[in-house]
Formats: sequence, C-alpha cells, structure tokens
Amino acid sequence: MTRPVVEFWFEFASPYSYLSAMRLPSVAATAGVEVRWRPFLLGPIFAAQGWSTSPFNLYPAKGRYMWRDMARRAARLGLGLCQPEPFPQNGLLAARVAQVALGRPDGDAFCRAVFLAEFARGQDISDAGVIADCAAEAGLPEDVIDAAQSEANKQAMRRATEEAERRGIFGAPSFFVGDELFWGDDRLQEALDWALEHG
Amino acid sequence: MTRPVVEFWFEFASPYSYLSAMRLPSVAATAGVEVRWRPFLLGPIFAAQGWSTSPFNLYPAKGRYMWRDMARRAARLGLGLCQPEPFPQNGLLAARVAQVALGRPDGDAFCRAVFLAEFARGQDISDAGVIADCAAEAGLPEDVIDAAQSEANKQAMRRATEEAERRGIFGAPSFFVGDELFWGDDRLQEALDWALEHG
Repeated sequence: MTRPVVEFWFEFASPYSYLSAMRLPSVAATAGVEVRWRPFLLGPIFAAQGWSTSPFNLYPAKGRYMWRDMARRAARLGLGLCQPEPFPQNGLLAARVAQVALGRPDGDAFCRAVFLAEFARGQDISDAGVIADCAAEAGLPEDVIDAAQSEANKQAMRRATEEAERRGIFGAPSFFVGDELFWGDDRLQEALDWALEHG
Repeated sequence: MTRPVVEFWFEFASPYSYLSAMRLPSVAATAGVEVRWRPFLLGPIFAAQGWSTSPFNLYPAKGRYMWRDMARRAARLGLGLCQPEPFPQNGLLAARVAQVALGRPDGDAFCRAVFLAEFARGQDISDAGVIADCAAEAGLPEDVIDAAQSEANKQAMRRATEEAERRGIFGAPSFFVGDELFWGDDRLQEALDWALEHG
C-alpha cells in the first residue's frame, strides 16, 4: 500500500519555510504521509508581481509583525531564530545543491542544515563555504556543489520555479496534495490531513 | 476577577474576518476570554501601502488561492460562502453602524448579521436597506443608522482606523492582547492562548 504524498515547496530565503522544514519529518511521520521536497526560487515569482524584494521588506508593518510572529512560533517549537543579514538571503546556490541532494536518500538533511545555518546561526547561505559545510554535515559527497552548478541542474531549477508559478504558487512554503494547494507553515497540518483523506 | 481580553480588529470586506466573527463567540467563551470588537477600515491602510484595492485582486494567484482556502475553511466550520460582487465590498456604512451598535450589549450580533448577508447570501453591504435589515435582525433601534452617520461617529471611525495603523495593523482580522499583535483568522486560537497566559 502506497502512502499518501504531500509536496513541500520551499525557498531557502523564506522564514516560514524554515519552520516547516524543521518540523516536517516528525509531523509527516506521525501522520504517515510521504513528503516530496521541492526547492524553488521566489525571486522570479515576486518579480512577476512587480516586487523587487521580499514583501516583508516592501511593507515594513508586515515585516515587523512577521519577525515577532516567527519569534513566538520558533520559541514554541524550540528552534533558534535570528534575522539573517542581508534579508532575504540569496538562496540560489543552496537551492541548486538541494536539487541534487534530494535525488539521494536523506537529501532533506542538507536542506535542514542550510535552514539552521541561516536562521538559527545567522550564516550567509550565498557563501559557497557555508553550503559546503552544510553538504558535509549531511554526508553528501564533495562533488555535489560542482554537480549543482552543471547546466543541466541549473535548467532543472529553472523548470522547478516555472512549475511552481504555473501551478499557482505565490509564496513559500506551499504544499500540494495532487492539485490542491495549501500556503503557509500554518497550513501544514491541514495539508497532511487532506492527503490522508483525499491523497 | 476580571477575564483576560482580546481585541478583535475586523473589516467587513475581509473574508477571513467573516470566519473569525462567526466562530469568536463560541471559541472565546470556551477559553473564558472577553472579546472587544473593533471595526476599522482597511482602505486607508492599503492606500498607504500603495494599493488601490484588495491584494486578492492585485495578485490574482493569491486571490484564486484565497477563495479556495476560504471554501475549505468555511465548509469545515459549516458556514455558507459566496464571493460578493463586487469584491471587496464597501464596508464603510456597516462599520459606522457597528461602531454605534457595539456601544450596546450584543452589538456583535449586528456584525455577524452583516457578515452573513455579505458572505453567506451575497448581498451588497453598501446598500443602506441591507444594513437596516441587519440592524433590525440584531434588535437595534431604528435610529441607529442615523446615529451612525453623525459627524461624531464618522470621526470615531476615522480615529479607529488611525489607531489600527498606528499600532501596526496591516490586514484583517487582527487580534491584540495588550500590545501583542496576531494577524489572521488562523492566529485566533493563539491570541486566546496568549491572553490566558499573559492577559
């Protein structure tokens, strides 16, 4: 019997993607739902909406609230939280490496290592050294960063972002159960429930 | 012993404010928390962010998702749902009448009557006849609409919206426990919990 599946679409620069990434292994296992990790880039999707940066920067009241909300939620989950500088971080390299890593068992460990480096320790994830450390921490082979920079993998990342936009994604994290879209860390449990009922 | 208090800041045009308004009496009573209903207008706050209409109209992917999310959540709450035409509705008259009604016991019954007219039956809440029917349904005296249009009450509504903006509100519904802000229907339970712990 196959388990129901939830697609987890995330962007490394996204604070709420951090919360979902960290609690997904536990809540999905409890629910008995399989998770497909799908990295993508919000930049092109925001640009198509006329935004040059994160809405949390464009709309200061919303940004101030977001960091307070994140602090409350991270504390409740027992997660560290700092505000990366700059915000948002450039998650392109991390996403490309994740795209390769997720083709292997336990590739999601790399994703969590990146999120922790960024949001718990305030490291700059556009730094290739930081990403190499995360890859090593997750037990990935040393050539994974070179593989991530291959033309084929760059194209795979572009296609992932195009797929996200085509399927109606406008923010991160987003969850799909089939074509049913759920947006936001606060919809994670609802997406899992939906997968169990309809997946 | 006084009960902890949550302020419920809502805009009649806001779909998620409808969900909160309908379930607030039950969930707040269960929690033992007192609710202060605070109508305000999102229009001036959106305008200050450079938006001429609802972000659900400005960003179509977000708007399509919102209506699907609303349909799922309304169904789970056993609430009717239709998309008002036009959307967003002009909630100015309703807010002014609510401002008066909420000075009386059970003024929130008027607010729920307006939300049901708008989102369950698709009536136009800028229509004075619709608002008069809602007032009658809530047992308000016939002169409430005249009182709502008084210069003093118009000023009170402007002050409420200014207070919302000054305190950092950028969307609806929003909840305050003291100065602690919670945004969105999906933060209602968290706001109640916060009131019990810190209120």
